[in-house]
Order: sequence, then C-alpha cells, then structure tokens
Amino acid sequence: MNILIKDIDIIPVNRKDEILKSTNLYIQKGRISHIGNLREDIKVDKKIDGKNKLLMPGLINSHTHLGMSLLRNFADDMNLTDWLTKKIWPMEAKLNGEDIYWGSLLSMGEMIMTGTTSFCDMYFFMDEVGRALENSGMRGVLTRGIIEDPKNPKEKLNETKELYKKWNNSLNEKVKVMVAPHAPYTCSPEFLIKTIELSEELNTGIHIHLSETKKEVEDSFKLYGKSPIKHVYDLGMFNSHTIAAHCVHISDEDIDILMENNVYPVNNPASNLKLASGFAPVSKMLKKGIKVSLGTDGASSNNNLDMFKELNLASLVNKAVDLEPLSVPAIKAIEMATLNGAFALGLEKEVGSIEVGKKADMILIDMDKPHLYPKHNLVSAISYSVNGTDVDTVIIDGNIVMENRELKTLDMEKIKYMTEKRTKDLLNR
Amino acid sequence: MNILIKDIDIIPVNRKDEILKSTNLYIQKGRISHIGNLREDIKVDKKIDGKNKLLMPGLINSHTHLGMSLLRNFADDMNLTDWLTKKIWPMEAKLNGEDIYWGSLLSMGEMIMTGTTSFCDMYFFMDEVGRALENSGMRGVLTRGIIEDPKNPKEKLNETKELYKKWNNSLNEKVKVMVAPHAPYTCSPEFLIKTIELSEELNTGIHIHLSETKKEVEDSFKLYGKSPIKHVYDLGMFNSHTIAAHCVHISDEDIDILMENNVYPVNNPASNLKLASGFAPVSKMLKKGIKVSLGTDGASSNNNLDMFKELNLASLVNKAVDLEPLSVPAIKAIEMATLNGAFALGLEKEVGSIEVGKKADMILIDMDKPHLYPKHNLVSAISYSVNGTDVDTVIIDGNIVMENRELKTLDMEKIKYMTEKRTKDLLNR
Repeated sequence: MNILIKDIDIIPVNRKDEILKSTNLYIQKGRISHIGNLREDIKVDKKIDGKNKLLMPGLINSHTHLGMSLLRNFADDMNLTDWLTKKIWPMEAKLNGEDIYWGSLLSMGEMIMTGTTSFCDMYFFMDEVGRALENSGMRGVLTRGIIEDPKNPKEKLNETKELYKKWNNSLNEKVKVMVAPHAPYTCSPEFLIKTIELSEELNTGIHIHLSETKKEVEDSFKLYGKSPIKHVYDLGMFNSHTIAAHCVHISDEDIDILMENNVYPVNNPASNLKLASGFAPVSKMLKKGIKVSLGTDGASSNNNLDMFKELNLASLVNKAVDLEPLSVPAIKAIEMATLNGAFALGLEKEVGSIEVGKKADMILIDMDKPHLYPKHNLVSAISYSVNGTDVDTVIIDGNIVMENRELKTLDMEKIKYMTEKRTKDLLNR
Repeated sequence: MNILIKDIDIIPVNRKDEILKSTNLYIQKGRISHIGNLREDIKVDKKIDGKNKLLMPGLINSHTHLGMSLLRNFADDMNLTDWLTKKIWPMEAKLNGEDIYWGSLLSMGEMIMTGTTSFCDMYFFMDEVGRALENSGMRGVLTRGIIEDPKNPKEKLNETKELYKKWNNSLNEKVKVMVAPHAPYTCSPEFLIKTIELSEELNTGIHIHLSETKKEVEDSFKLYGKSPIKHVYDLGMFNSHTIAAHCVHISDEDIDILMENNVYPVNNPASNLKLASGFAPVSKMLKKGIKVSLGTDGASSNNNLDMFKELNLASLVNKAVDLEPLSVPAIKAIEMATLNGAFALGLEKEVGSIEVGKKADMILIDMDKPHLYPKHNLVSAISYSVNGTDVDTVIIDGNIVMENRELKTLDMEKIKYMTEKRTKDLLNR
C-alpha cells in the first residue's frame, strides 16, 4: 500500500534537523520513499491529513518482559527479594504457553496504543510471543531468558537455537532472535561462555541484565573480584552485539568498557525507581557517546508499558540527579526512545528515524489537545507534555496498525476478556 | 441535583478503609449523603452506572500558577537564572488580564480533564482567575503573588485585601483567598511582616515559596544566618496557616519547625526535577506526620498540569532517593494528592476524602482500559498504571463538570483558539 501523509510536522531524529514543518511524507513498499514536495501523479492508495498532527519515529522499547502484564498490579511496594521469591517467581512457575500468548497480546496492544512499534522481549514460551507478534504486526527481538539449570544445561540453549531457526528474519524481517543469559548472578561463568559461543555460532546478539542493583555488584566483587560488566567482558561477551539492561550501579571503568566495546545499555527509569534500584548515570554515558536507549521492563515493576512515560522520566529525572537542567535535553530523550533503541536492537539502518530509504515505522500524534496548547516548541511538547494516549495513528513496516486510536490488528475486547479470565485461573492454580 | 452512583468501587482515602467494593454513593444538595445500601424510594435526578469504574476524591493541586500555561513549552532545558530573567519574567511583564483569564481557563480545562477538582493558585490579575474559576465550576484558593515593590509597597497588599473582600467564601464557599508573599528572597523581612499582619487581619492563610533551590538556602544563610524556613518562622509567619511550596533543601531542624507549627509543605516533583532543583525529603516529612501534599507548579516548568503524573512521580521517585521500595507506598501517594491537599488548602473538613457529610468533589475513572488489565490491586493501578486521561467523570460541589470525558462547563475549542491567538499576539507585543 502506498501511503501519502500531507501537511505534517516531523521530528525526524536524524541528527541533522530538529523539526520539519508542514511537509509531506510518502510510503511505498513499506519504506519511506520521499519527504517534501511530491509530483502530482504519484499513486496513492491511502491519504492521511497531517494537519494538527506530528509525525515521529515509532518508539522502541529496548527491554521488556511482555508476558508479565498478567502480573501487573499484582505485587507492589515490597522489597526486591520478597517481591521475587514470594510473589513473582511462584506465579511465573505456573504460567503456561497460552498465558504468555495472551499476556503478550495485551502488552502489544498497550504498546501500540502508546506509540511503540518495536520491542526487545526477554521471557519464556517465546514461540508464543512470536505468534502474538505475528498477529499484532509489531517488530521485535525475541530472546529466551535463560537462568542456568545445572540439571539440564542444554535445554534452554537448544530452545534458543530452535527459536532462531524458526523466527529469525521472518515476517519480512520484522523478527530477530538473540541469546539471553538472564544475568551473571543466575548463570555461572562456564555457562555464560556457552551462551556467548551460541551467539557466535548463530551470528546474533546477546540480551542480558547487568548491574541492576547495588547488592548484585557487591556480590560480584565478592565472587569474582570485579564488577558484573568487567566479569562478562573478561568472558568475551562483548565480542557479540550486547544489549545490557539496567546498568544502574556502574563505575567510570565500567562506562569505559561499555563505550570501547559498543555495548548498548538500556535505561529503565520507572522500574529502577519503583524497585528502588537507584539512578543510572545516564548523562555520563550519553556524553561518552554511548547509545543509551530506554525500556519499560516488565509491567509488574512499572506498572505500564507506556514508552512516553519513560521518555518523560529520562528527560526529568537525570536533571535532578545531576543538579543540571541541561542534563538530558528534550531532543536527547526522544533520541534515546527511538534511534538509540534501533541501535540497541541492531536495526539502526532500518528504523529509528524518519529518513528516506528506512522502513516505515512511525507514529502520528494528535497535537490538538488542551494540554498541548499553546504551540511553542514541539520537541519540548513531546518530552514534557504529551501522553501516550495522544498517539493517533501507528504505522509499522508500512502497515497501519492503529488509525484514529482504533487498533487494526488486535481485538482488545477479546484480549482483555482472555487475560482477565486466565489471570483468575492462574491465581487458583 | 440528587445523584446516585451505582455498583462502584471506591478508594475513600478516609484512613480506615483501603477500598470499598461494588457499593453505592448518593449525593444530595452537593454533599455525600450516603454510602452503601440505599432505600428504594430515594429521589434520584441522575443515575450513574459505576460498573468498571473506580471512584475516588478529586485530586487537589496545592501549588500552581495557572496563567503560566500560556508559556507552556516556551522555554525549556535552560538554567534557572537564564530561564527566569531572559525568558519568563520578560514575557510575564507583558501579560494582561485577558491573557491570564484565557490561560487560566486552559489550565482549568486541562485539570478537570485529568481529575483535579481543587487548586491553590499564586499569580497576578487574580480577579480574572476568579472569573475563570466561576466559569469552570472548580474549587480553589486564590492568592495574589507579591514580589515586594519598594516604590509602592502597599499596592499589592491592597489588591489582596480587595480580592479577599470580593471572592473569599463566594460561590457557595468554593473560593478562598490567602495572602501570598512570593518568597523570602523577593520580600524583605519588614515586608514579610506586613504580609503576616495582613493574613492575621483577614484571618486567613499564607501561600509562599520556601527553600526551592540550594542557592536560595545558601543566600539565606549569608543574609540572615539561617534557613528560609527558620527565617520566616522567626518572623512569626507560622502563627498563620501556611502553605509552603517546594521545601526541597531543608534540614532536620527545618522539618521539626514545619511539624511543630503545622505547616503544609507542597511537593512539586515534576517541576523540581525539570528545573534541577533536587529531591525534597518527602518520606522523612511524611514519617514525622507532616501532611505533605502535591502540586504541578506552573505549566512552564512541568510542562503539564496532570496531577496523576505528580502522584505517580511521588510514588516512584522517593523509592529510589531513599533506596527503599516501601518509601512512599501507593496509598500514601494517593493521600498526598487528595486528603493532604485538602489539609493544605484548609478544606479537610469539606473535601479530600469520600465520607458522608463531605462536599461531593470526586472523580470516576474508567478502569476498562487495556493498560489497567488484569485487575489485581486497584490502589496500585491508580498510583502506577492510570493516566489522567482515564478520568471519565468529574463532580465538583455536587455538579457534574465532566461526563464521559465531555466538559460541561467549558468550551475547549474556543479556549484553545483564544489561547493560541493571545500567545501569538503576546510574542509580538
């Protein structure tokens, strides 16, 4: 389908222009084929009026656990150990593939409705997440989170291999598969090396949690005499493309390792605040040229998947942490939620900015809302005033998946019914 | 009008019950007259189906500058001094009464649409804010912000007196007027005493900015040898009911003074983050029994007036600051945004909780949204998942001012048009 969007303001996030005012954008064969004035005789299947709207790249949720939406608002205001051991892990042990399928659909519906077009998910029953992705029309990286099981060390590695064979580069290349050792505190060094070898064998990336809490870092020093980041670096992990979720408690030496090895840290502001993990040194990493992206983490520690909230938090919180109002400016927070996410997912040549030749992953925001008046600076409006619910239209891979807030790919009434039903069942299992 | 709300879940914020499930609420003569089972023969003018909705007290924005919405997204990512002296103050000098009227209407529209029913405003042309309040149907405290003018020391005090005579207790007691010396760094000790005397003469409260920035506190020590809080305390300010906006950089001694004198600090999380002011010791104050409430500050330093965002920030940010996931639990953040706000405004006997006898200021939230599924803990959902745009119906003083998201008192199309027009005019003045 050829789509023409007329008279639209654009935040392209292409590192050259801050804003393009009242221009046109043309989508052909799923890609952005033209921006600007257009010939009169081009073939248009669908025309969208861009007046009073703003177009920007779809947001990229670089670290999440989609199936966990079933546990949203299930356990809160607890310390991390109690939360995990008494609430989350016992429930997760009861989850089955159908639960994950419906929970992932619920998450994808919420993400599309708040402007997210791509994600990087780490969970289990990942084949079901692939099935949900196919139905939703989203773009995503699937990673099977692996907590080492000494009794059966090969099982989850094989699952990852199967997942890769079945899904990697499928659905018009909308799907990627990476290897996901959960964390250095749930995988031995020997097992981490096996996951690294697998990523090299498959020629794909790694997705891991690193240095989320102070305790994790202290434990690593006790066990290995070094930080989690130095530990996995020494094991050779960073020879592979690595998505490192959290990176909260990190030293200057850690930051240098991340920079020198092109590691992609994912900042999860809401989750880090809610679990009282602390404040990641975001502006310090950005200043070193590290492409820090943003994620929601799971809905059970957030408790939503609205990337505009993460973008807003990233722009606000780091200013107070650094006591510096210029710490993470509005446009930088937008870049974290879009282009830097594309880098993290290894998709920077295809998505993350509005440029001719890139795939058509983009969102239109309804700027005709009271809380967006009067119209001064549009970049500020996106970082500081917009809600996820202001997203009007979402295009992924050239397909319209939401228009005028109506989902085109998902039946949310059915999804709400099914997740509510399965959750009640889960609580009685 | 008698209103009956059927089959509704309620978070009453009455410090006894966390949640009332599937009950009924009856409003008569502007007050809550009954909660629970009702006789069949009661007179009902309006019935509201509460199924899939949640009822709670209307939010209270305890510190704001409503007219500043005209400067939303006008100047951002700047240091405080440049922001004030180069951008905000020159523009404010050009504002006239009509600007403030329309800017305040825009703010009130946004506040109602995100569930706020009461506010405490500090600005100028306050008669115009009163006019906007009358049109919107909101409840509010009007305070004329006074920066000392040595050439004409009496003018603004007299304005406050006139404001008090005209508006205090007007509109079925929906309006209160207080005295508002801007801050100890913009008013001399002698002049502060005059404002205290005026508050005593009028038997009303005081609204002031205190200890917002580190520099303000350092300057106070240089000038007076003590903190801003100790300074105004020694001048006798706290004999009057005092609403103290910000209280970010405060010592344990300051906290004791606030506690012993029943001062009402207002935490403005988004503004304090955005202007890089820092983190107020919120949980420490709450633990001492101080009734810390929440405010948005002006739309130019936020850049929105959505109290659900402040509530969410208060529940998240303090956990990371204290490295304690139990720091400000969900229900406490809700209390800050409702009942504690009522205490700050001196209205705790009338509003701030859902109790029989109190005035009918309440909101209904549409819980049938994907991001609120599945339904586990409703209190968590309000603090961590709800958006301001999930507010469906707003009742103030027994009058429905929004129903199914349709404003009943304000013409937002006209307000958007007028604020956009006046802002363009303002930029060319």
